[in-house]
Amino acid sequence: MAQKNTTREEDYSKWYNDLVVRADLAENSGVRGCMVIKPYGYAIWEKIQAQLDKMFKETGHQNAYFPLFVPKSLFEAEEKNAEGFAKECAVVTHYRLKTDPNNPSKLIVDPEAKLEEELIVRPTSEAIIWNTYKGWIQSHRDLPILINQWANVVRWEMRTRLFLRTAEFLWQEGHTAHATKTEAIAEAELMLDVYTEFAEQFMAMPVIRGRKSESERFAGADDTYCIEAMMQDGKALQAGTSHFLGQNFAKAFDVKFADKEGKLEHVWATSWGVSTRLMGALIMTHSDDEGLVLPPALAPIQVVIIPIHRTDEDLIAITDKAMEVSIQLKKLGISVKYDDDTNKRPGWKFAEYETKGVPVRIAIGPRDLENGTVELVRRDTKEKAVVELEGIDEHIEELLADMQDSLYERAKQFRTDNIHKVDTYEDFKEQIKTKGGFYLAHWDGTSETEEKIKTETQATIRCIPLDSEEEEGKCMVTGKPSKGRVVIAKAY
Amino acid sequence: MAQKNTTREEDYSKWYNDLVVRADLAENSGVRGCMVIKPYGYAIWEKIQAQLDKMFKETGHQNAYFPLFVPKSLFEAEEKNAEGFAKECAVVTHYRLKTDPNNPSKLIVDPEAKLEEELIVRPTSEAIIWNTYKGWIQSHRDLPILINQWANVVRWEMRTRLFLRTAEFLWQEGHTAHATKTEAIAEAELMLDVYTEFAEQFMAMPVIRGRKSESERFAGADDTYCIEAMMQDGKALQAGTSHFLGQNFAKAFDVKFADKEGKLEHVWATSWGVSTRLMGALIMTHSDDEGLVLPPALAPIQVVIIPIHRTDEDLIAITDKAMEVSIQLKKLGISVKYDDDTNKRPGWKFAEYETKGVPVRIAIGPRDLENGTVELVRRDTKEKAVVELEGIDEHIEELLADMQDSLYERAKQFRTDNIHKVDTYEDFKEQIKTKGGFYLAHWDGTSETEEKIKTETQATIRCIPLDSEEEEGKCMVTGKPSKGRVVIAKAY
Repeated sequence: MAQKNTTREEDYSKWYNDLVVRADLAENSGVRGCMVIKPYGYAIWEKIQAQLDKMFKETGHQNAYFPLFVPKSLFEAEEKNAEGFAKECAVVTHYRLKTDPNNPSKLIVDPEAKLEEELIVRPTSEAIIWNTYKGWIQSHRDLPILINQWANVVRWEMRTRLFLRTAEFLWQEGHTAHATKTEAIAEAELMLDVYTEFAEQFMAMPVIRGRKSESERFAGADDTYCIEAMMQDGKALQAGTSHFLGQNFAKAFDVKFADKEGKLEHVWATSWGVSTRLMGALIMTHSDDEGLVLPPALAPIQVVIIPIHRTDEDLIAITDKAMEVSIQLKKLGISVKYDDDTNKRPGWKFAEYETKGVPVRIAIGPRDLENGTVELVRRDTKEKAVVELEGIDEHIEELLADMQDSLYERAKQFRTDNIHKVDTYEDFKEQIKTKGGFYLAHWDGTSETEEKIKTETQATIRCIPLDSEEEEGKCMVTGKPSKGRVVIAKAY
Repeated sequence: MAQKNTTREEDYSKWYNDLVVRADLAENSGVRGCMVIKPYGYAIWEKIQAQLDKMFKETGHQNAYFPLFVPKSLFEAEEKNAEGFAKECAVVTHYRLKTDPNNPSKLIVDPEAKLEEELIVRPTSEAIIWNTYKGWIQSHRDLPILINQWANVVRWEMRTRLFLRTAEFLWQEGHTAHATKTEAIAEAELMLDVYTEFAEQFMAMPVIRGRKSESERFAGADDTYCIEAMMQDGKALQAGTSHFLGQNFAKAFDVKFADKEGKLEHVWATSWGVSTRLMGALIMTHSDDEGLVLPPALAPIQVVIIPIHRTDEDLIAITDKAMEVSIQLKKLGISVKYDDDTNKRPGWKFAEYETKGVPVRIAIGPRDLENGTVELVRRDTKEKAVVELEGIDEHIEELLADMQDSLYERAKQFRTDNIHKVDTYEDFKEQIKTKGGFYLAHWDGTSETEEKIKTETQATIRCIPLDSEEEEGKCMVTGKPSKGRVVIAKAY
């Protein structure tokens, strides 16, 4: 605690890396680019998973599990998809090790155990899943198929950062099959809605819903929908994507169904996913220089109670009261931890739970017992209040709801303050050099212009927003006509 | 439905394979030895996971996540462990594909993207985890560490069977670190108790708790505890293992802690796991020639309601009543499906839910509405009864509890009927040739004798049971003294 933490102002990137480690969320492992998700970080991920899983099931999806490996011949079947991921594939070539004849305590790959066909560790599962769906789909009665998978995937990245970009990451990937194009597009849009609701209601993170430009689309998709969030440094983070895959995978794997008239047609597809990257988004939306700030809906511990005592008798009396309060809170579905570890001082604990982003801290001392009060601190504003024990459960329930709302409002206000309309390329280049944020600008819709912007400014077209009004205008770069503004920003 | 299913009597192995597919649990994939777990199978696995996860957390464990890959140098650090798994390792040697210069629509492994050090796809995670724990443990105050991981692992198997033996499988692996030997042994035993409780209370599957002989121990363990269940064909299935790892991994990875006096000592370890293999055990404990039989505690759908109707008016009235019943049942925490699909006939549905092992089937027809009754069939005994609608919720709640108990009792009775005491090797060889089952016999404790039994009869020493009485005797093979009987059987 003696060492001062890097502030966001000083170095946002270092602040992030330090915080992930300080708050015990994750750390780098002995494997290049792969992380260890520590118990506290994993507990947050479990909250994310549980809520999303519930929402997927409520919208009619079921979970299943498909193989980790994709044989190369299947992997390359959908050419665009294969091309998009080929450069970041971990490849299994052998299935056995043997003792090193030159050093009996070491192992070497057994050259005689070479696979006839290499296996790709899945970077995404369209190929293996559509190869499977082929056997499941004959008739329109077999459709739709609405399946989700929770899994690990591997994309070999040269520069990695905890949660934001790791060689292996955890995610969910939905893969659906439909009889019509309309139905598949509706599914892709529905899942974008689910992601939006999750981001805004549970992560307290406002997002812009949009479509990707052609060059930013998922490899193999006809259309990619996305949600984009603004981090505290003004950069964008793509928090979830939902793809309309057209008939691309059905054609690559020859998946057809007989419609009501018996006519054979290719099946329509979607896929959609969010990953442990959301952990990074959560951190960079709310946290502060002292540590993590978690929206109550995703906090593994919502309330921590810390006894302040001199004598054992004090501790006994405080513990009694703390247990009472815990029981009351648990009845309301609020998670509570009572930390009576006598090896650690209250000040140490205060800092510890602040770092870990526990939304509400209660301290109880002997004087509180006399007065029938507790000291209560909310993590987001750090406001301290002395509160009556009577009715504390409902007080905290309201407080948590208020924190959830106000974290969202604060993030939204920040975003509003950092979205800028620009009309000339000069203005844009000048502004994005000096300050972050999202830029709303007209674009002529061509890949050439998009590429020019990217090369010259490192900013990219994040999305063509779904919810904005049409507005006739002229591309800020070329002056050609445009029908609406797109969102441009530097991105994670 | 026209084709007759293979019966258990005819061909137990074929019955099993067919059933897994017929009941929509899993299927073989396009990847050698890897399976696809289908939604219905995965829903059962989710029930298994949820219950175990709850029990792990109740016993103080937390979840975390460690990398899929283990660098070869870490993998080989604990020599016995490495030796034990070396022959079944999938090895990643490259991290990129490129377009085949001879065929632009194909990909080849890019020879320039060879890894400096090969990565092993984890067959188990002791190595990567203990390499991580090294950074977490300095003092006795950092202990114990009680962590579990839900993950996929890969063990390259030449002969695979759905759920029972697959190259990739899903499992949980607990990895704990302790300050003392006593504490580590207590942990290994505690987790064996958790597995026993889960197997018996939730899977309704009686198990024998025991220790493995030295040659059957987990590679790298000082002691392996196990639970062994008897399948319907009399063969044994190892349903879970809990290992006391001594200081083997702490020594291999140099993990020491300072005790209260400041003295540095190596840390003591355990690991324990169960896998999707439990699905196979569940099937082969309870199912019958018609299909799956599921203990209610693990059935994704506990009650199915099927309308029997001629007219649309009938269907509307039946649906009203079915909704009423569903709501009542859901209030008691019972999962219900109402299947009003008009494209399928009731007879087809009856067979379908029988195949899928839904514990209770309710049929409601117009006459039932008049009489205030329903027709109710329990899956295990196939008993049919006409039951009053009044109080149906409590009736079903009791029925499900009764089924859970009676499935356990039935399996236990079967096991009792198929455990045989044998005192001479001749007897043993004769009996195990003609009938399956478990054999309780005296063994001299040597690997030589164990090997001889295995070679000559294909049966193995499943375990040295924990809960049986000491009994002086003579090894059935060598006549040497023995202190108690061990369990010998052919095994999955």
